[in-house]
Amino acid sequence: MSDSRPIGVFDSGLGGLTVVRELFRLMPGERIIYLGDTARCPYGGRSEETIRLFGIEDAQFLMDQDIKMLIVACNTVSSVALEHIEQRMKDIPVIGVVLPAARAAVLRTAERKIGVIGTVATVRTGSYARAIGKIDPSIKVFGKACPLFVPLVEEGMIDNDITRLVAQHYLYEMIDLGVDCIILGCTHYPLLMEVIQGTVGTRIQLLDSALWTAKEAQDILTAMNALSPYHNGGLEASRFLVTDLTLHFEGQAEAFLGNTIPSIERILLEDLVQ
Amino acid sequence: MSDSRPIGVFDSGLGGLTVVRELFRLMPGERIIYLGDTARCPYGGRSEETIRLFGIEDAQFLMDQDIKMLIVACNTVSSVALEHIEQRMKDIPVIGVVLPAARAAVLRTAERKIGVIGTVATVRTGSYARAIGKIDPSIKVFGKACPLFVPLVEEGMIDNDITRLVAQHYLYEMIDLGVDCIILGCTHYPLLMEVIQGTVGTRIQLLDSALWTAKEAQDILTAMNALSPYHNGGLEASRFLVTDLTLHFEGQAEAFLGNTIPSIERILLEDLVQ
Repeated sequence: MSDSRPIGVFDSGLGGLTVVRELFRLMPGERIIYLGDTARCPYGGRSEETIRLFGIEDAQFLMDQDIKMLIVACNTVSSVALEHIEQRMKDIPVIGVVLPAARAAVLRTAERKIGVIGTVATVRTGSYARAIGKIDPSIKVFGKACPLFVPLVEEGMIDNDITRLVAQHYLYEMIDLGVDCIILGCTHYPLLMEVIQGTVGTRIQLLDSALWTAKEAQDILTAMNALSPYHNGGLEASRFLVTDLTLHFEGQAEAFLGNTIPSIERILLEDLVQ
Repeated sequence: MSDSRPIGVFDSGLGGLTVVRELFRLMPGERIIYLGDTARCPYGGRSEETIRLFGIEDAQFLMDQDIKMLIVACNTVSSVALEHIEQRMKDIPVIGVVLPAARAAVLRTAERKIGVIGTVATVRTGSYARAIGKIDPSIKVFGKACPLFVPLVEEGMIDNDITRLVAQHYLYEMIDLGVDCIILGCTHYPLLMEVIQGTVGTRIQLLDSALWTAKEAQDILTAMNALSPYHNGGLEASRFLVTDLTLHFEGQAEAFLGNTIPSIERILLEDLVQ
């Protein structure tokens, strides 16, 4: 048993390519079809109603491409719209980025105190706290929105004085509270891993939601006997679609994917809006 | 002769309310109809094609509301799509935010060196340099994109160590180059006026494009005898429309407008997309 159909992955922008990077590392034979809604990103500050609408539009577009699994690589959509998307996509597994990292953190916290950092929307919804609470209600969860981290990454300010000062500004409280795990609840944050680790110290473990999401996808496809049968997967066999060819998208895509993208196709927003 | 129709103003988000604030200060009898495309903001990093498309959609929506003048309060749209909008709106005057501030700066620079700060898109298009060059080609113009200023304002970090460090990071070069005027080419930047002035020193004059745009609107309406006849204008008689009721929009609107907005109406993105 095997399934040669691609895995669909979407995000509001290019940050979701961090999930694709991990998917290729774990399953180099898979084909991916990636959608980044770069004409309307970021979703983080928008209303829940609008986030649900955009998320369902993105998901439906990928469903129409005959995929075997849908990965919602956007923390914001995973936090406020995953159930709505699952209800509409009953035939294939749908994975968000919240639950895999939440599970990993629960298994790792000795102090039973977990920190979660992300966009305003992700933190405000309390989605990670809910996911952790369902597994073990005795664990304390501290959320902190870090809205400057995304523009810092997009400016390429990965490691300088400003970024360190911003990291201290956001994280000192969490360190004082005694967390021993912090979930990086935003696809951009793995690029700040070094600065964040330098700020919080080595006693605190950082959990990259992209990595744990890719592991979850591998587990599910393995259990379903639905891994790809041929060695025709990987970067060249995959497709990368965006709704806008934004400034510097090639450089940004490369930073998130850790590789050069062979080609990016532009699709029209009209093809997405239902 | 007078004209009681409203003035249409649009921006990608709520920042254009800084222009509305100046319009009310200069012409308290006017009615405004404001459109903020908060479901798709910010426009700054998108492709020129997408910025043109969104700008024309916003403009057309306001044109359909029977306005007497259109103000493009968005620096990004003013920089890349003003001519396209003017071509479609031949019956009423269309004002962008670039030319009024450019003219004001030309009249004020003694050193004949002007700095322009704004979003990546605004600076990259060189729209202010072009506008200044048409008036006086001997003036040197130095542009600098400051992408962290908008998220700092939106976080309410108006005056702290991080904001000062970011301002130094962006502006030290411009100070060294010897400019004596800096155009604040983004609607968010007036809120950082104090930090920016503190960074560049009092020798450098800051020019707020919102203020000069409102003055231009007043000049044109006066010359056309098209000011409003009645004292039924102002905040209560105006309308404020957005495409998404984003997080904290009321507080943000208040910060930009310098006043509480009586009510904000949500319109659907479908009403905008043609």
